[in-house]
Amino acid sequence: MSVLSDFTKALQAGAISVIDLTAPLSSSTPVIQLPPEFGQTATFELEEISKYDDRGPAWYWNNFRSGEHTGTHFDAPNHWATGKDLGDIASVPVERLIAPAVVLDFSARVADNPDFLVEIDHIKEWQSQHAPLPDGGWMFVRTGWDARSSSQAEFVNADENGPHTPGLSGDCVRWLAEETPVIGLGVETVGTDAGAAHSFDPPFPCHANLMGNGKYGLTQLQNLAQLPPTGAVIIAGPLPIVTGSGAPARVLALVER
Amino acid sequence: MSVLSDFTKALQAGAISVIDLTAPLSSSTPVIQLPPEFGQTATFELEEISKYDDRGPAWYWNNFRSGEHTGTHFDAPNHWATGKDLGDIASVPVERLIAPAVVLDFSARVADNPDFLVEIDHIKEWQSQHAPLPDGGWMFVRTGWDARSSSQAEFVNADENGPHTPGLSGDCVRWLAEETPVIGLGVETVGTDAGAAHSFDPPFPCHANLMGNGKYGLTQLQNLAQLPPTGAVIIAGPLPIVTGSGAPARVLALVER
Ligand SMILES: Nc1ccccc1C(=O)C(=O)O
Ligand SMILES: Nc1ccccc1C(=O)C(=O)O
Repeated sequence: MSVLSDFTKALQAGAISVIDLTAPLSSSTPVIQLPPEFGQTATFELEEISKYDDRGPAWYWNNFRSGEHTGTHFDAPNHWATGKDLGDIASVPVERLIAPAVVLDFSARVADNPDFLVEIDHIKEWQSQHAPLPDGGWMFVRTGWDARSSSQAEFVNADENGPHTPGLSGDCVRWLAEETPVIGLGVETVGTDAGAAHSFDPPFPCHANLMGNGKYGLTQLQNLAQLPPTGAVIIAGPLPIVTGSGAPARVLALVER
Repeated sequence: MSVLSDFTKALQAGAISVIDLTAPLSSSTPVIQLPPEFGQTATFELEEISKYDDRGPAWYWNNFRSGEHTGTHFDAPNHWATGKDLGDIASVPVERLIAPAVVLDFSARVADNPDFLVEIDHIKEWQSQHAPLPDGGWMFVRTGWDARSSSQAEFVNADENGPHTPGLSGDCVRWLAEETPVIGLGVETVGTDAGAAHSFDPPFPCHANLMGNGKYGLTQLQNLAQLPPTGAVIIAGPLPIVTGSGAPARVLALVER
């Protein structure tokens, strides 16, 4: 039979399972905290329109306010000056929204050091044990950070020097963006860059290099612990905001048992 | 090899194609217009945070305001009083977000009559020619209405008696919701109900019956003309708004060539 009907049957039989990688959206969804001199992203907020009352006798619904980069979201190339002319979130080709992912687990090292940075050698070592990074797919970095997502303070983990959350070194992400065939980087933290990356030289190297190479970011992923190192297929569905620099996304993974 | 790797290979080879069923989101995305005594959904609006300027030297991003039921969106059971206790948008089981769809084409009749209503016999006739409605899948109604989506006035098509857009009769949707195994109804118009449904008895029968049976709605779909009558697989990714009555969704279709 056809590949698509085999796929549907495997889903219905539970041979392929669907895992939700998306953080629930509410006013307690954590958001990034930039240095105070910069503009900040909005916290997610609902505004009730009616709730089975005189504003709408049979129906309940809400308006809402959010940031493009609030909660689980997709970074488009034009989010950064380096990728200014490389496309908004509405023009990411739909074929790219369904792609394989590999998952590199650094949660043990991050448990000892919240400022842990992935280096080129960590990835090369992983590749020698598993597989090359996927052509046209994602590199996901597991850090265990999703366990902190019910608290803004624990998720952002800031002290007087700013946030302390894991990420990639500047060298590593330059190599990832320029030398490997991945379409982007997915992380469990509030942004693709490490918490301390505002003070890196150049600042925010993940954004600068990914966006500058027409690549993407996926943030605040959860449940990466349920994915195998290789073999998962990711469906990343950002809202197609025209001119948007990114968007909240529903992100699902398909895994074969 | 595995079903999932066959699926990925077919996607990469273009044997399975991905079709975007989602309307782009901007301040000109059309919205439903209820009778004026009721609360109304927000038009989609961007609020710029920074654009490579002193509010954020290297980056561009926005906040935004929207309705849960603005643009291409997913109706959850609690959207209606009849489905009050049957679940919010964040608790739709993820397995339901990937499901087959059939597409019934009424665009010729709608071209003659914008108030056209689908009846039970239309669906039974379609079933006798094609296939039974899919167990655990969607029924999509093609009306050609997506061609009007660049204009709020043409999309809502209102005169002094209110909006004129196609839909299902009350009998038809009661039967669809109670007697068939579909998980929901997908349409090209601004809501699952016909434009005149505020004056039906009972009002808004699609919402009352779908939500009351724990089923779903998908609205403002486009590109249904590119789908076959049977065989498409739909990925519907609503934002998981906690307590939400629905949410803007990225909706993709998979079609095998
Ligand atoms: N690091 C940043 C610096 C400036 C703006 C946004 C970010 C993000 O991480 C983001 O995309 O969420
Ligand atoms: N028909 C309605 C009546 C009241 C509230 C919402 C609707 C919708 O169509 C919707 O879900 O977009």
